[in-house]
Amino acid sequence: MASLPGIGRKTALRLVLHMLNQDTSDVRAFGQAFVVLKDNVQFCNTCHNISDAPLCSICSSYKREASTICVVEDMRNVIAIENTQQYTGVYHVLGGIISPMDGIGPSELNIDSLVNRIAKSEIKEVIMALSTTLEGDTTNFYIYKKLSEYNIDITTIARGVAIGDDLEYTDEITLGRSILNRMPYSNSLVK
Amino acid sequence: MASLPGIGRKTALRLVLHMLNQDTSDVRAFGQAFVVLKDNVQFCNTCHNISDAPLCSICSSYKREASTICVVEDMRNVIAIENTQQYTGVYHVLGGIISPMDGIGPSELNIDSLVNRIAKSEIKEVIMALSTTLEGDTTNFYIYKKLSEYNIDITTIARGVAIGDDLEYTDEITLGRSILNRMPYSNSLVK
Repeated sequence: MASLPGIGRKTALRLVLHMLNQDTSDVRAFGQAFVVLKDNVQFCNTCHNISDAPLCSICSSYKREASTICVVEDMRNVIAIENTQQYTGVYHVLGGIISPMDGIGPSELNIDSLVNRIAKSEIKEVIMALSTTLEGDTTNFYIYKKLSEYNIDITTIARGVAIGDDLEYTDEITLGRSILNRMPYSNSLVK
Repeated sequence: MASLPGIGRKTALRLVLHMLNQDTSDVRAFGQAFVVLKDNVQFCNTCHNISDAPLCSICSSYKREASTICVVEDMRNVIAIENTQQYTGVYHVLGGIISPMDGIGPSELNIDSLVNRIAKSEIKEVIMALSTTLEGDTTNFYIYKKLSEYNIDITTIARGVAIGDDLEYTDEITLGRSILNRMPYSNSLVK
């Protein structure tokens, strides 16, 4: 228990003692769940998202536009974007971002399989939806270079002042960028 | 002293007692500063920004593009945008935003003078740079309706994920909007 992240020795002891007080069947089911987890969960062959089949439910849905790929860092970002209910394309999960400090280079990520997807099938647009950090920017640029030979639109999610934010308390870089990247007012009206 | 915002009776007493301990000349200069403040500070005839002349230093500068007007709520926003060093146009200070709760309607704001500016001189673009709140959106829309008869570009500052922010911790509305308002990747490269 203590090997789990965020759980120290004292918490681990408390949790294990709690387990000892439970029914045998409950504890058995709890343990069995982890065995099943590791055995049954797989990753989608196409987008590398978590899945229970070789093709995930998003890639296999006929409601999604297969010609638009949203590139994200990990499956938590897929969940975040799905929650917005604003995106109807498919995803590509990189499994991380380029971070030399952590020893993660391009070869550790699912970048080659993204290039393969674009080479093989009819893709119109690739949306870069990585975090707006230094590592995210580096990864964006690396992928942009890799994809620039293909005849597709490469876009990024908008960066700017968050909805509900006061201009005064927005940092200078974000505010400066949001002025440079201003857009027609009519686009901002909710459809 | 106690009539100032954020200063209670005890703090006021402490401040006044401190003043009593100062030199007469210092106290006189302190008081005189307020008299001068109210007498000498004026507002720019054109943009309503704070100024020491009938025309403020931004409006009268030959380095600024007079054909681009950035509409802001108050002079603090002018300072915030000037600090980004990314904007070369001029401003129009509304003096507030439409807020029925606080009894502020369109007639209390410098909207008519904005319309006059656009009717009289060669304006190419109006950038709406109000806070991304409900009141800000209402004011944006009101001004948009007022200006839609003129042949000018009406733009807004970009709204989206702030620079340096993690996708996971961005609220759903901002993330959804930033996907809808995505832009060509090449635009995001810093010039």
